[in-house]
Amino acid sequence: MADLNLKTHLAAFKNPLYLESGRILEPFEIAYETYGELNEAKDNAIVICHALSGSHHAAGFYEGEKRPGWWDALIGGGKAVDTDKFFVICANTIGSCFGSTGPTSAAYPKLEPYRLKFPVITIKDMVKAQRLLLDSLGITRLHAVIGGSMGGMQALHYAIDYPSLAKRVIALATTSATSAWAIAFNKIAIESIVSDPEFQGGDYDISAVKSRGLRGAAIGRMAAHISFLSPESMREKFGRDYAPTDGLFDLFGKFQIERYLDYNGGNFPKWFDPLAFIYIAKAINIYDLSRGYDTLENALARARSHIYLFGFERDLLFLPAEMEAIDLAMKSVGKGDLSNYCLVKSDYGHDAFLTEVDKFSDRIAEILGAEI
Amino acid sequence: MADLNLKTHLAAFKNPLYLESGRILEPFEIAYETYGELNEAKDNAIVICHALSGSHHAAGFYEGEKRPGWWDALIGGGKAVDTDKFFVICANTIGSCFGSTGPTSAAYPKLEPYRLKFPVITIKDMVKAQRLLLDSLGITRLHAVIGGSMGGMQALHYAIDYPSLAKRVIALATTSATSAWAIAFNKIAIESIVSDPEFQGGDYDISAVKSRGLRGAAIGRMAAHISFLSPESMREKFGRDYAPTDGLFDLFGKFQIERYLDYNGGNFPKWFDPLAFIYIAKAINIYDLSRGYDTLENALARARSHIYLFGFERDLLFLPAEMEAIDLAMKSVGKGDLSNYCLVKSDYGHDAFLTEVDKFSDRIAEILGAEI
Repeated sequence: MADLNLKTHLAAFKNPLYLESGRILEPFEIAYETYGELNEAKDNAIVICHALSGSHHAAGFYEGEKRPGWWDALIGGGKAVDTDKFFVICANTIGSCFGSTGPTSAAYPKLEPYRLKFPVITIKDMVKAQRLLLDSLGITRLHAVIGGSMGGMQALHYAIDYPSLAKRVIALATTSATSAWAIAFNKIAIESIVSDPEFQGGDYDISAVKSRGLRGAAIGRMAAHISFLSPESMREKFGRDYAPTDGLFDLFGKFQIERYLDYNGGNFPKWFDPLAFIYIAKAINIYDLSRGYDTLENALARARSHIYLFGFERDLLFLPAEMEAIDLAMKSVGKGDLSNYCLVKSDYGHDAFLTEVDKFSDRIAEILGAEI
Repeated sequence: MADLNLKTHLAAFKNPLYLESGRILEPFEIAYETYGELNEAKDNAIVICHALSGSHHAAGFYEGEKRPGWWDALIGGGKAVDTDKFFVICANTIGSCFGSTGPTSAAYPKLEPYRLKFPVITIKDMVKAQRLLLDSLGITRLHAVIGGSMGGMQALHYAIDYPSLAKRVIALATTSATSAWAIAFNKIAIESIVSDPEFQGGDYDISAVKSRGLRGAAIGRMAAHISFLSPESMREKFGRDYAPTDGLFDLFGKFQIERYLDYNGGNFPKWFDPLAFIYIAKAINIYDLSRGYDTLENALARARSHIYLFGFERDLLFLPAEMEAIDLAMKSVGKGDLSNYCLVKSDYGHDAFLTEVDKFSDRIAEILGAEI
């Protein structure tokens, strides 16, 4: 396997980013990684968009890392997103907490963080910022944009907001507008965070939370972890296995599923900032691809990219039917030739787009390799 | 419609209740309601079993009540569970907080409440206590036992633990052993309660919580409300409707689904005690019909009741497949003639057994009316 030529960058933008809300973000920075090399024609770039808690670290290892970037199974030399052929870019979204400007960034010209004064951002804003990054790199044509979950929302916005930018848009496990079900899960997390006394109305000690965690954010993440799985995958992974150290009649004795939630929830606030979580959850909640275009059909009528939609069979967070509905809407506006829907067989639930890459990577390689 | 002859009672038991855990409950009380009249032969009694947050108030109105008991659509004069014909009994389970002995009851001989010293109880224990209540009423044969969700777990325990007691056992929206998915939702609620500083390790001010609520319990209940619905029913009920008073770009502006969760979650701790919640959730988590009988088949081989299993199509908390598995297990031990599985068409989700009674009430009337 060839080296994927992982590089990390920070791009600074002095001009304001005009946000969908009417507010501005100025200045702003975008942290991003690249893999592979941009060719001379600058036409071999692929943008990868990350999900809610993801980062720009999509592939490869940093020194000392035990686990690679979150989509390493998909991206690399000889893999479906082949870094021997393509120049791959993954940017941390604005509003997040891995280097791009977000609610814990300094609110210029002050040195103190924005916190709750950070403007509400949208998925459309995230893509607009990424577009400026591509401009700064001299990239005006993308071989493809690929993303799952919130990353898929971004990918679809590329297709609608910048119709001539990407030749291929690949959206996995996502939707055209966030459902009440998904909003409800985000609600648990948001309420749990803001109700934690240590959150202090957003004025919490940022470094203390990073080292100690925040109970409310941990519990909120437990709820999110339910939404990432399915009843079937939980049965398969955990069943009714009980912690061998605990008595069945101990009031707080634990099933293995509870220990899994404890572990994943408990760690979360140490690596993901609670304010960033609230802002990104808000962006997901108010995501509606049709906003500004009156109807979904009007929005999709703008598309000139080939759009590939992957639904996952047991995904409860973004139902396959929601992906299929985008395909049907494309057909209804005479864009059927640009639209392709595929249902991936899986019991895993929403997270299958991260954990079962082998189930769709061949198809992605094929899409990226085909002449269109 | 005839008056259903609603009466409320409190039965006190001085002898110890020997619990599955090995501990005892002594003395204990059971609050219960009855509707209709017990006939001379004492063979027209039907037991109704309530769910996690339910109570013995299953039907009719108390003075000043705006909403009737929780299964009023099913129980009453001329209804499927016809109180003109049957003597209907619904008991508050032990461990609950509506009059039966639970964690906020006085820990005899002291006057202080048990709190975390209350013994862990099981579904089997709840039924054992109800059996003593029936004994005290001179009832040795039941026309039927009916319950949904945790009530269905109790109904199935009647069939297994007291094979000659009930002629008909009707279990809706339940399972033979609680799944990891359901345990995970209970986990959110339990963690959220115990992490609330006002919970004070169980030493909270009981009357203050009743009047002010407890934030952690409210958030936990929000998670439970997700599990009671389905993605489809949430779409139908709430869609993406947004609170008309809130701006879309207000960070804490709310969708209607969020207001629904706020309302239902926020009220919950005022009418349901947090410690009782933890104990009953624990009973549900460790519920396994096969415990003590080695296998589910061994347990079901004991059944002499006719067992009627109702699964609900979009129930994610207790999947229809889990109900069907009980029917298959009955067949595998040669009890197919006693077992009957029926799938109720519904998009509502788990709570359909409470909210869409019209979809199965005729079938229940038929079951109760048929000679067997």
